[in-house]
Amino acid sequence: MLKPGSRIGILGGGQLGRMLAMSAARLGFDVHIFTPEDNSPAARVAAATIVAPYEDLSAVARFAAGVDVITYEFENVPVETAQAAAENAPLRPGVKALEVCQDRVAEKSFVNVAGLETTLWRAVTTEDEAEAAIVALGVPAILKTCRLGYDGKGQQVIREASAARGAFAALGGVPCILEAFAPFEREVSVVAARGVDGAVAAYPLVENHHEGGILRTTIAPAPGADALADEALRIATGVLAGLDYVGVLAVELFAMGDGRLLVNEIAPRVHNTGHWTMDACAFSQFEQHIRAVAGWPLGDPSPHSAARMENLIGADALRWQELASEPGACVHLYGKGEAREGRKMGHVNRLSPLP
Amino acid sequence: MLKPGSRIGILGGGQLGRMLAMSAARLGFDVHIFTPEDNSPAARVAAATIVAPYEDLSAVARFAAGVDVITYEFENVPVETAQAAAENAPLRPGVKALEVCQDRVAEKSFVNVAGLETTLWRAVTTEDEAEAAIVALGVPAILKTCRLGYDGKGQQVIREASAARGAFAALGGVPCILEAFAPFEREVSVVAARGVDGAVAAYPLVENHHEGGILRTTIAPAPGADALADEALRIATGVLAGLDYVGVLAVELFAMGDGRLLVNEIAPRVHNTGHWTMDACAFSQFEQHIRAVAGWPLGDPSPHSAARMENLIGADALRWQELASEPGACVHLYGKGEAREGRKMGHVNRLSPLP
Repeated sequence: MLKPGSRIGILGGGQLGRMLAMSAARLGFDVHIFTPEDNSPAARVAAATIVAPYEDLSAVARFAAGVDVITYEFENVPVETAQAAAENAPLRPGVKALEVCQDRVAEKSFVNVAGLETTLWRAVTTEDEAEAAIVALGVPAILKTCRLGYDGKGQQVIREASAARGAFAALGGVPCILEAFAPFEREVSVVAARGVDGAVAAYPLVENHHEGGILRTTIAPAPGADALADEALRIATGVLAGLDYVGVLAVELFAMGDGRLLVNEIAPRVHNTGHWTMDACAFSQFEQHIRAVAGWPLGDPSPHSAARMENLIGADALRWQELASEPGACVHLYGKGEAREGRKMGHVNRLSPLP
Repeated sequence: MLKPGSRIGILGGGQLGRMLAMSAARLGFDVHIFTPEDNSPAARVAAATIVAPYEDLSAVARFAAGVDVITYEFENVPVETAQAAAENAPLRPGVKALEVCQDRVAEKSFVNVAGLETTLWRAVTTEDEAEAAIVALGVPAILKTCRLGYDGKGQQVIREASAARGAFAALGGVPCILEAFAPFEREVSVVAARGVDGAVAAYPLVENHHEGGILRTTIAPAPGADALADEALRIATGVLAGLDYVGVLAVELFAMGDGRLLVNEIAPRVHNTGHWTMDACAFSQFEQHIRAVAGWPLGDPSPHSAARMENLIGADALRWQELASEPGACVHLYGKGEAREGRKMGHVNRLSPLP
């Protein structure tokens, strides 16, 4: 167990790093941030910050040597960066989670090997493979780049088999995955943690609504999902154990009409669909992650309230006066300057008694 | 209403400043700290810090000129410091609250003039006055220095009239107040806020237990105190309005057997007996204070849970492993180095459903 006063290093300076930093401070830790960005959201609540590119491995090593444990706040930290950090301090979660989750084919393979179900998929590295895959999986299907896609970027919906070659070319001819369309009832997710001792704690399953590929709303707990709780825990535990994971991660799931849950995506970090825990649980996902990486026992993930989380995206943040004046609206703003389109600027949690 | 991204200056770098800073960051504000202390608890979660003595009024002016609003985290900020700040940015709460609350005689006079009841008291500036006061009020009584007492320091209990002169001398012959002993049933407090618009919001009355003059435990809400809620709100409103106050303050009260509440002390700041709100309310006292000084509407002070707050004083903090491992214990540590005797190192909130 890491002693209070110890230094926790975070790779990444965005809003997730900011909220992690505040939870770490609450437990008496000092936070050091490594980020390529000047005046980042996380740096403004941290004890120390190094601003350097992720590719500057000597800066990374220096950063790591100055802290007691390192974690990351986003899944596209380069693996080489993570490795350079891990040579100088314990890295939690480890490099494997990045390697698996940075590549959609590696991720889907991992999930299936762990005995968990996904929608049908095919790796696609040529136009011929794109055509063969669409024939195998049928339409509609979604072609996604294997790497660096987020919030709906790097994707093409294919509605006719003849469009497969063009879609692959439109995505730049880079390695892709074709995923069969899953006729899901709703999108849900489970946010869960694994401690250094292997203990697992999962928050209740939540229901998520996206617009334009970006999360808009999370309803927690997911209504009428009690019967899915055991399966969600089984999936989370399988993913966490398979990655030998320490910390919080999210598994995005498709809830099918027949009661099955298909794994859509793993995020090896605290997650937007867990932001409701900040106000509705005694132990937020951010504290839970810090507890795990610090080698502390996990907190109780039970909520004391139900919550509805609304993301503030781009111009939504200009509504701050209205939100500040709304009774019961727990407002979170990330300290980002410009409310650019599609940029996550903050979120609002609205609590209600548990059903 | 202060726009997110604005800078909030805090005079004082202790744990209250630290928790205020984190609540300000949550709302998207940048926090600047002014403190005489190197590496203070608050500085380690703030965007910027000036380290200088409070007496360095040009540093204070420079600090104030760099922020959009200023507040303070403790009541012994010198009035001259507060005035120098107030000349360069809005100071909330204002100088008056400091002037009144830094002097026990001024404070008790203010309270009585506001039509609120205290125990009987006399100002004492000479040994003769000490003797006359003890004759008037009887024994036991408590002689306190007017200024700079806290956590039981600067006090003498007088059990025999003959001890009055000696007690006054033992306190250094400085201006004192003699307070009649109040045969109270229990000590309670009300933490309340007043907005820029004059709106008042009070958290429920809580019950406090002290040891050696230092708060050990707060039970929130105070059991069986529903009948006292209106009177507590009346008192809080009277104090807040009388001080033309903006922000959170605490009124420590003696609950008498006949149902009366006597004002014991006013703390013109967020208060240790409000720390339970961090985990048991959607809007903590720290967010409430920031909302008030930023000119935002106050948050709903209703708790969603009951709580028992335990202070971690001195060596208590060495129990961190046990506390970290206790299911349901919400641990808060202030990032202070040495666990000196009597030093407030952190606190723990334990939640339960509301009664």
